[in-house]
Amino acid sequence: MTRLRLFVLVLAVVLLSGPAVADPLPSWNDGPSKAAILSFVEQVTEAGGAHYVPPPKRIAVFDNDGTLWAEQPMYFQLIYAFNYVKALAPRNPGWAESRVLRAAMVGDVAEVLRNGQQGVMQVVMASHAGMTVDQLQASVRDWLAEARHPTTGRPYTAMVYQPMLELLTYLRAEGFKTFIVSGGGIDFIRVFAEEVYGIPPEQVIGSSLVAEFVETAEGGVIRKLPEVNFIDDKAGKPVGINLHIGRRPIAAFGNSDGDLQMLQYTTAGEGLRFGLIVRHNDAEREWAYDRDSTIGRLDTALDAAEERGWTVVDMKSDWRVIHPAEAD
Amino acid sequence: MTRLRLFVLVLAVVLLSGPAVADPLPSWNDGPSKAAILSFVEQVTEAGGAHYVPPPKRIAVFDNDGTLWAEQPMYFQLIYAFNYVKALAPRNPGWAESRVLRAAMVGDVAEVLRNGQQGVMQVVMASHAGMTVDQLQASVRDWLAEARHPTTGRPYTAMVYQPMLELLTYLRAEGFKTFIVSGGGIDFIRVFAEEVYGIPPEQVIGSSLVAEFVETAEGGVIRKLPEVNFIDDKAGKPVGINLHIGRRPIAAFGNSDGDLQMLQYTTAGEGLRFGLIVRHNDAEREWAYDRDSTIGRLDTALDAAEERGWTVVDMKSDWRVIHPAEAD
Repeated sequence: MTRLRLFVLVLAVVLLSGPAVADPLPSWNDGPSKAAILSFVEQVTEAGGAHYVPPPKRIAVFDNDGTLWAEQPMYFQLIYAFNYVKALAPRNPGWAESRVLRAAMVGDVAEVLRNGQQGVMQVVMASHAGMTVDQLQASVRDWLAEARHPTTGRPYTAMVYQPMLELLTYLRAEGFKTFIVSGGGIDFIRVFAEEVYGIPPEQVIGSSLVAEFVETAEGGVIRKLPEVNFIDDKAGKPVGINLHIGRRPIAAFGNSDGDLQMLQYTTAGEGLRFGLIVRHNDAEREWAYDRDSTIGRLDTALDAAEERGWTVVDMKSDWRVIHPAEAD
Repeated sequence: MTRLRLFVLVLAVVLLSGPAVADPLPSWNDGPSKAAILSFVEQVTEAGGAHYVPPPKRIAVFDNDGTLWAEQPMYFQLIYAFNYVKALAPRNPGWAESRVLRAAMVGDVAEVLRNGQQGVMQVVMASHAGMTVDQLQASVRDWLAEARHPTTGRPYTAMVYQPMLELLTYLRAEGFKTFIVSGGGIDFIRVFAEEVYGIPPEQVIGSSLVAEFVETAEGGVIRKLPEVNFIDDKAGKPVGINLHIGRRPIAAFGNSDGDLQMLQYTTAGEGLRFGLIVRHNDAEREWAYDRDSTIGRLDTALDAAEERGWTVVDMKSDWRVIHPAEAD
């Protein structure tokens, strides 16, 4: 065979065989969770298939705390807010009259959480209200650059889950639009969601304070007020999804009871639907907590998962690696 | 010359010359408005240019009533709501006690508008509250299919502006993400925005009632309550933009004083910015109204346009055709 013929033959083989199909989820071990994800995506994207969904309707929603990044020993935004309240306490003597704010100043998370969502919002309001969105986001950006997780010593943005990053990328490659639907603050998450998750600010839904437009010489800014606008948690999640997205997602990913209604709403639509819960059962590599946890309690949603056939990720066996730093 | 040589020559000329560059805005007459649009888009999309903006930041926001479709003799959503209130009045005897609802029943728009946004919201709440979003949208869909504009006899969705449709398409082809930011109802606009404007529901921002998640046997629905959640008008527009988009747009398109703050906020950002106001001055082909109109008043925003260098579309001379039916 001449060299030219050999070259043409090799070229033909290469062209005809195409590139090797790479595993889109290399950090997921083979098993029922990975198989369920791949099967769902293949079915809704198969042109002409019985379960085909056109790209504009391929909406996937993700909780953030405990689903896309860690949430122990407490929600990272709360750590930011505690620090902020502590730093500003000398300039706000009135805060000492509030039991919740006093607790925040000394990092007493149990006392703050004892007051539930109200306690959390009181700390968030103390640290956020009166600032413009630009000011708040600059402050969060500075904090994220410097702060380190108390037990791992890593930047908080390194506490994201590598398997979920791969899942986001895989879904987008398959024509999905990926949204965050978080009980956390919408302005807070938008600071890092684009860089870390590839999710632009217009695809982030979260809790918020009431805001106002303030005219300035340059044209105007948005300022946050000390009043709750929306709590994007539990039954609030489907409401937030309806307000921001305006159509029912076909896939939802969460990890706690706060995600129950989002999963119910998403999986109730017509056609093939997908619900998934990340179960934190890996005390060695991450944390193990579920029915009795104050942070990220997974109780009724775990029962619902069994009843409704949602996929429950067994972190210990389903995830080959947890965080990006551990990936090959 | 042989036929073959002639063929090869013609082929070469065709291939080398490439496709003729089509005018992206054929319904816009040449003039300062069209030139300003083209110049802005060329500058922000020119890789390596001084004013280059990367695609994720190419956010363009459009008012709806009077900017993307007509708003005379009154806002089309109000015509829908009036009809609805009239039809349901026999089953709601209590409505007769409300001056605004009595006015709506007989189509007395002046009386409803005399009560400003409060009057409008009272009618909207009477017609929308208690319904699920799915029910409301099915009702709007049915109405849009049957209803005809009182003076043109056309379906309301045929009352869109052909030059603005071309502008939306052009911007998207140039990597922009196009959003609607309307004082109208978010659920109402989402019924037709995707089909008519190519704008998916998640890129529609509007006024809304408070909503709640209601569990059902199937999983759950969203129901609208008789309480205002958000008025996306005037100073509300930048607030809505911040909540839904989370970054400052680089181009804003409006037609009335309700769009003033959206234009201020958009054009105040760093780098090249674009503001445009559609001026209704074509009594022959459309309507002529500005400083004294109850619907779509254009007064302070017109002064601001001059001060700040926003483009003011002279509908009469800038637009070759108004509605799609008149296009070639």
